[in-house]
Amino acid sequence: MAPNLEPFFKQVDTLSESFIERLRKAVAIPSISAEDDRRKDVVRMGQFLASELESLGAEVQQRPLGKQPGKEHLELPPVVIARYGSDVNKRTILVYGHYDVQPAGIEDGWATDPFKLTVDEKGRMYGRGSTDDKGPVLGWLNAIEAHQKAGVDFPVNLLCCFEGMEEYGSEGLDDFINDEAQKFFKDADAVCISDNYWLGTEKPCLTYGLRGCNYYSVAVSGPGQDLHSGVFGGTAQEPMTDLVRLLSTLVNTDGQILIPGINDLVAPITEEEKKLYAPISFTMANLHESLGSKTTIHPDKERTLMARWRFPSLSIHGIEGAFSAPGAKTVIPAKVTGKFSIRTVPDMDSATVTDLVHRHLTSEFAKLASKNTLDVSLQHDGKWWVASPRHWNFSAAAKAVKEVFGVEPDMTREGGSIPVTITFEQATGKNVLLLPMGSSTDAAHSINEKLDRRNYIEGTKLLGAYLHYVAEEPMSE
Amino acid sequence: MAPNLEPFFKQVDTLSESFIERLRKAVAIPSISAEDDRRKDVVRMGQFLASELESLGAEVQQRPLGKQPGKEHLELPPVVIARYGSDVNKRTILVYGHYDVQPAGIEDGWATDPFKLTVDEKGRMYGRGSTDDKGPVLGWLNAIEAHQKAGVDFPVNLLCCFEGMEEYGSEGLDDFINDEAQKFFKDADAVCISDNYWLGTEKPCLTYGLRGCNYYSVAVSGPGQDLHSGVFGGTAQEPMTDLVRLLSTLVNTDGQILIPGINDLVAPITEEEKKLYAPISFTMANLHESLGSKTTIHPDKERTLMARWRFPSLSIHGIEGAFSAPGAKTVIPAKVTGKFSIRTVPDMDSATVTDLVHRHLTSEFAKLASKNTLDVSLQHDGKWWVASPRHWNFSAAAKAVKEVFGVEPDMTREGGSIPVTITFEQATGKNVLLLPMGSSTDAAHSINEKLDRRNYIEGTKLLGAYLHYVAEEPMSE
Repeated sequence: MAPNLEPFFKQVDTLSESFIERLRKAVAIPSISAEDDRRKDVVRMGQFLASELESLGAEVQQRPLGKQPGKEHLELPPVVIARYGSDVNKRTILVYGHYDVQPAGIEDGWATDPFKLTVDEKGRMYGRGSTDDKGPVLGWLNAIEAHQKAGVDFPVNLLCCFEGMEEYGSEGLDDFINDEAQKFFKDADAVCISDNYWLGTEKPCLTYGLRGCNYYSVAVSGPGQDLHSGVFGGTAQEPMTDLVRLLSTLVNTDGQILIPGINDLVAPITEEEKKLYAPISFTMANLHESLGSKTTIHPDKERTLMARWRFPSLSIHGIEGAFSAPGAKTVIPAKVTGKFSIRTVPDMDSATVTDLVHRHLTSEFAKLASKNTLDVSLQHDGKWWVASPRHWNFSAAAKAVKEVFGVEPDMTREGGSIPVTITFEQATGKNVLLLPMGSSTDAAHSINEKLDRRNYIEGTKLLGAYLHYVAEEPMSE
Repeated sequence: MAPNLEPFFKQVDTLSESFIERLRKAVAIPSISAEDDRRKDVVRMGQFLASELESLGAEVQQRPLGKQPGKEHLELPPVVIARYGSDVNKRTILVYGHYDVQPAGIEDGWATDPFKLTVDEKGRMYGRGSTDDKGPVLGWLNAIEAHQKAGVDFPVNLLCCFEGMEEYGSEGLDDFINDEAQKFFKDADAVCISDNYWLGTEKPCLTYGLRGCNYYSVAVSGPGQDLHSGVFGGTAQEPMTDLVRLLSTLVNTDGQILIPGINDLVAPITEEEKKLYAPISFTMANLHESLGSKTTIHPDKERTLMARWRFPSLSIHGIEGAFSAPGAKTVIPAKVTGKFSIRTVPDMDSATVTDLVHRHLTSEFAKLASKNTLDVSLQHDGKWWVASPRHWNFSAAAKAVKEVFGVEPDMTREGGSIPVTITFEQATGKNVLLLPMGSSTDAAHSINEKLDRRNYIEGTKLLGAYLHYVAEEPMSE
């Protein structure tokens, strides 16, 4: 065991009820970034965080981001940045989290008040933001407090970057990070983000990769306005007819992308990589449980994990402009816009993907010989990210997991994207580690979001232990 | 000219301003049947109509229809039925219309207050309900009044059936008509409905056919709940992928229905029928204007009219359960329901059509080898209708058109359905004539709905002249 961990761990156990009380106070502030009326609560949550950090002795700033684009009557909530320690002989670790939450209301079907932390007999702590991302953010504060009360020297200088708009697209954050990379964040030796989840419920993981996402619109338009299908059916070429035909050429039932050239962009699997998947704690039963069905594509774990992490996928999300309500309406929509996205992986280049999408849809549309008009556009793209899991940032975290949980962590990637990861990597040029606290069943973004007491308390130990190991880990890569 | 028409016509011209005033009062009552808060105005409109009829000497009843299904806190507005005249030596004509209107608000983009009749320099009378259907309904009242003031004997006994829920599916009306067919309506010798439109703007028409409509839902479901495409993309079979593939097999860009067997159900075209289309006042330019584009399927008028009136068509209306808002959302919808309808024509049998739809979709879904679940259902069907245009009811109307407008009317069918038509035909066993007052540019259901002054005043003459000719037309068919 690294020196001084034992008294820190004991102190965390001693303080566990007060840590839960801290989370209770945070969950009670409905800091919903997507709702204008809650903006004052988002700001209040930032203030709560700033004052907790100050009372722990950190140097704190609340940095304004200006007006919210498109909602100029609203000020964006501040980024709460903090420095705890400035010993030039210590490594400096930059940690990121967010203090805003997804919308929630008891009327959505919550079993308990979403803004009242409710702990059941199994130690499941229900409340909006419990796991995403207030629990992990407070984990860093808890670790500082436990060091102080245990009389253990804090092993690193800690830089904090806690934002209040993550659930609404992190408005303004990229520019802020880029601006501060060589200022407030300039001492950072590595970055740690705790804002994702274990692959399952028992075994912690370290995450070293994310898929990117290219999101496309494909619009077909013809008539000057929506038409009545009784009057015009059979006499006009219907945009919806063309659109479903185009969408049907993108992907098949087994998830194979049918756009020529896309699959050729994917980095080949190496023999070494193949071996990575077998040890990972994951079963098809886990997948069936989280899916709520057995409608899976692949028969085994290895191919499923590869499909999620290291192969692209294409999902058709919906159609804008067509009839979408319950019931029956006999409209011929004048303009319909299909939405689909491609999850990208190494070595897919975004511009090349977009070019292939354009070429494919243009060619398929030409086959229809339609008089309607096609318009394909990239709505947004976010690059895939893969870090080196052999970096000292990762090896330190792995030792911390072993110390706290007694197991080697799963080395995972995620199928989704966490755009701030790549922003930090590119802005600071440092290694970024994703070190999750919550588990796969926490229901972030859903009703009945929770964080298990074990994940919160042992997770606080994990964050502290990580800082100890990262302080003394030899340089690598 | 039929006897006594001249003094009637003169009287209509004399009273024209007061007829417009009557329409102004009616338009001022926002009788929107789809809006709960406006139900009192629908009832008020029924009372207005009843009291106008009473002051003209008609025997009037306001007949309750009970609670509104699904909205039991609301009473359905009454059906206003009336009898004017009970001379056993005269024919009895049953006329139908509706006194409710579509929703409208200035914020939808109206150039004028939708509930204030506004007449421009070209005699276009703007207002919600002006053409659909308050103008035509008041046309019958105007005709009675002009006969009285001209001292001309009213040529028939008139039965009126004016409902207040037409724009909300005519809740309760079918049962009412069936109940009264051998009671209040038992003397009817023929039925006349003025609730559709001329094919163009210059030439009146008589309408003798309507297409039916079979409306289908095709649902594909798999996962237990909506999924995140980052997490599950590539590992689960997506219902939306399957659905767009199924929808792409229904119809092609040129409107050809691809479901095997459907086209075989259509009655063949006879040589006699072919000749009907050439004389009709309609051009491709008319169609392009109403479409707002040139994205038409057929190159000429004849084939276009046949495609609208006497061939089936299939329109895909939209998808329920998928992402349909503006912007980008990376959801994999768990259950998606495509909506499409088939406009039916002689001799298509609804049950046979439904059977072919089921067989086709089941077979196409089997080809996908998907683990998802398919559910196809008929949401509703309405039969096509074709009357004999050689019946005395039609020949009388044709003479009236010739008398008032100086032209032979176009003999038309409609691509859409007017379900009450077939209800009256089946309940009374009598010939039904559709005798429109408004023109194709009236924008019923849209913003800036209007009725041209000429259509209203000459239309009142037409309704009166029709009653004169129908009174003396020899029996036929």
